[in-house]
Amino acid sequence: MAQPSLQPEILSRLREVLEPRHIVTDADELAPRLIDWRRKYTGAAQALVKPGTTAEVAAVVRACADTGTPIVPQGGHTGLVGGSTPDLDGRAVILSSERLTRIRDVDPLNNTMTVEAGCILQTLQAAAARHDRLFPLSLAAEGTCRIGGNLATNAGGLNVLRYGNARDQVLGLEVVLPDGRVWDGLRTLRKDNTGYDLKQLFVGSEGTLGIITAATLKLQPQPLETATAVCAVRDLDAALALLGRCQQATAQSLTSFELIPRLGIQLSLQHVAGSVDPLDRAYDWYVLVEAKGGHGDGGLKAALESALMQAYEDGLVLDAAPAESAGQAQAFWHLREAVVEAQRHEGGSIKHDIAVPVSSVPAFLAEATARVHELVPGVRPVPFGHLGDGNLHFNLTQPKGADTQAFLARWDEVNAAVHDIVASYRGSISAEHGIGQMKVAENARFKPPIELELMRTLKRSLDPQNIMNPGKVIDVG
Amino acid sequence: MAQPSLQPEILSRLREVLEPRHIVTDADELAPRLIDWRRKYTGAAQALVKPGTTAEVAAVVRACADTGTPIVPQGGHTGLVGGSTPDLDGRAVILSSERLTRIRDVDPLNNTMTVEAGCILQTLQAAAARHDRLFPLSLAAEGTCRIGGNLATNAGGLNVLRYGNARDQVLGLEVVLPDGRVWDGLRTLRKDNTGYDLKQLFVGSEGTLGIITAATLKLQPQPLETATAVCAVRDLDAALALLGRCQQATAQSLTSFELIPRLGIQLSLQHVAGSVDPLDRAYDWYVLVEAKGGHGDGGLKAALESALMQAYEDGLVLDAAPAESAGQAQAFWHLREAVVEAQRHEGGSIKHDIAVPVSSVPAFLAEATARVHELVPGVRPVPFGHLGDGNLHFNLTQPKGADTQAFLARWDEVNAAVHDIVASYRGSISAEHGIGQMKVAENARFKPPIELELMRTLKRSLDPQNIMNPGKVIDVG
Repeated sequence: MAQPSLQPEILSRLREVLEPRHIVTDADELAPRLIDWRRKYTGAAQALVKPGTTAEVAAVVRACADTGTPIVPQGGHTGLVGGSTPDLDGRAVILSSERLTRIRDVDPLNNTMTVEAGCILQTLQAAAARHDRLFPLSLAAEGTCRIGGNLATNAGGLNVLRYGNARDQVLGLEVVLPDGRVWDGLRTLRKDNTGYDLKQLFVGSEGTLGIITAATLKLQPQPLETATAVCAVRDLDAALALLGRCQQATAQSLTSFELIPRLGIQLSLQHVAGSVDPLDRAYDWYVLVEAKGGHGDGGLKAALESALMQAYEDGLVLDAAPAESAGQAQAFWHLREAVVEAQRHEGGSIKHDIAVPVSSVPAFLAEATARVHELVPGVRPVPFGHLGDGNLHFNLTQPKGADTQAFLARWDEVNAAVHDIVASYRGSISAEHGIGQMKVAENARFKPPIELELMRTLKRSLDPQNIMNPGKVIDVG
Repeated sequence: MAQPSLQPEILSRLREVLEPRHIVTDADELAPRLIDWRRKYTGAAQALVKPGTTAEVAAVVRACADTGTPIVPQGGHTGLVGGSTPDLDGRAVILSSERLTRIRDVDPLNNTMTVEAGCILQTLQAAAARHDRLFPLSLAAEGTCRIGGNLATNAGGLNVLRYGNARDQVLGLEVVLPDGRVWDGLRTLRKDNTGYDLKQLFVGSEGTLGIITAATLKLQPQPLETATAVCAVRDLDAALALLGRCQQATAQSLTSFELIPRLGIQLSLQHVAGSVDPLDRAYDWYVLVEAKGGHGDGGLKAALESALMQAYEDGLVLDAAPAESAGQAQAFWHLREAVVEAQRHEGGSIKHDIAVPVSSVPAFLAEATARVHELVPGVRPVPFGHLGDGNLHFNLTQPKGADTQAFLARWDEVNAAVHDIVASYRGSISAEHGIGQMKVAENARFKPPIELELMRTLKRSLDPQNIMNPGKVIDVG
């Protein structure tokens, strides 16, 4: 690996457009920006820059374009696939959105808000709430992640079943293109058929086609009621039948339908303070069900409970605990979230972020579970997550007492075997985390060549110099 | 205009891939395919071809690509902007989807169906209903239009408020690219972040980037309840306040919020059989409100009525008639639909398909109405449509007794004046009908140059020969 060459030209160009304090070159200050959230990837960069306006972003990008300098956009830097971490080349400039934090406009009558890319997700949820509206995007990193990153990665999260992915929250974008020009596509319209829907190109492209600097987002009415329950289900087929019934009974107000296996609960009870076994005895499979909506007459809770009761009578549900208070609902969610933390206490985990058609989840899980047991005898699968979307985090905790490093060394091999099965169900090897640098090669193994070629065509036509987050998402060859 | 040159090469190539009866060159048979639905555009073509499989579509496109022959995809041929009508050049081959009518798969557990492009919209609604599911796309032409065309034009319609546009119904596409290769992107997943979302490029591109041959569509649970009402509102500001209240009260189950001005009702009563004045006396503005959802306990209807009652007490609503039966709801819808037909009996109409931010509708309508009265004294605006989406059909009935041809001759001038106002509200000059050939020049007047350039970049990189529906959507210059 060559030493990063000093490139005085780009630094002097950057100094022309930004105040010195917004150009970071100090190694200690840079260090945390060069390693990813999961600490799997470390890179190098010449500088971290913090433009404060769209015009400054544009000027930075122009300077980089003129000098052929790679740009790595960075939001909250909470991605799980190394998408916002530079490679080792060392010429990169990291462009942080942290100073682009203006909420430019909230229009409750139009149910929209226009915000800058660096706004923290939780700040936007709160801003919407202040106008008696809901901004439904919600995920574990919401206190840290920034909306530009959420959009660039098409984040999923906890409310996808009802409100869709990040993509579905967007009406318009402002984007700095790879040549430094600004595309003002900040539409606030529900309907607009005046040409190709360019914003879709940038959503989910992980900064490889341009830098999102602002977005117009949809807002929703605040739901009048929330109904939450934990159920034990007979098996996964029963869980799917229950899903359909709950969707109909709640008028599609179902926001979450989360799968938790017994092992997930057991480890949580063991390792995470505040975890409470939700039902009187242990069952193999649980679902956490939540619906938000209703008419303020208690009908939503009644409808959900009646659907659960019917499913109990039909043998789909073995036991159920509807939350009788907000506190109890919170306890159920605590348990769901504890599943992730609990696994850490048991050593290493090999992780997957997969999706298959909802109807294929039972067959997929049976097959994948058998396969990983074959590969790693004693491995402890903890498949949990967004069953309602077909998106499971198929996490594998190491065998008891095994050597953690030796187990983790098999990450790629195990991933490959699981992904082969995912592919046989026409599933996705990255349902909500994106490709980043982690899955570029693995993705190329499954995407039809024609699709990879279309992606390259788009990348080349929009970013002919390949300076926008190079090496992420697609290998331009 | 040059005579269409005979191109024996393409015809002989077509005969290699299709049976003779699926290649139409007879002038009488061709004639109806050469003129658009509104009878504004007439074109010329060498042949109409009817491939029956994706492989046949691909072979036809390859033949056209090899010979540089323009292809005009045609579905139900019900578009309103001349998008499926060839130009006068005469070299075009019209590619009809009418034999691509297979429903390949319905998966109720996954809430998806995979269907071929030539399926008629109504057929798909019925197929979903047979599996106790709802396919929510619904529009006036649903008995004739085909799903490929609905997707290629990103059709809107009557349920957008709740379920989104055609784009929002799609999980995957199969597309024949301009070089005849087939991209199989028939994903059935709710979450898939494995690269650029290519399907978005083709949805809404009106056949200029490729030919959609099949799609995987989302299905919804069948709503358990429908609640419908007609209200007279104090004014347009009151209508907007009512919209927000209804959305919250019905837990976002509001499917329709349609504006009807008194003149629309008056003309319907006069000209269209079966029209009934919905309220005891006449008011300036009406909205037709419909919600679909609920929990089967009557709560949806109660919630809507209670919101209307509260709005009445607050002076927003002047009178309201909740539908007491399916028959009465149908009568309300008959009235809404009669508005279009009724205008025909009063002579010519100059039409617009515009959208503005919902919050700007009152100001826009005031300004646009004043402007058209200035331009054409005595003109009778009948602004109606999807107020909930900010999408109004701002139709102008000719002055009483005026010369129809002289009035219609002012179409472009009036359009331009109205569109200038639309643009000042950052609105859309084509909310749901698309660009086709009708609005290419007008669209270029408003789109930022950078956006037109991005569209051209995409068009050129995917269709370098410009054979896919040339002259539609974007002038490649």
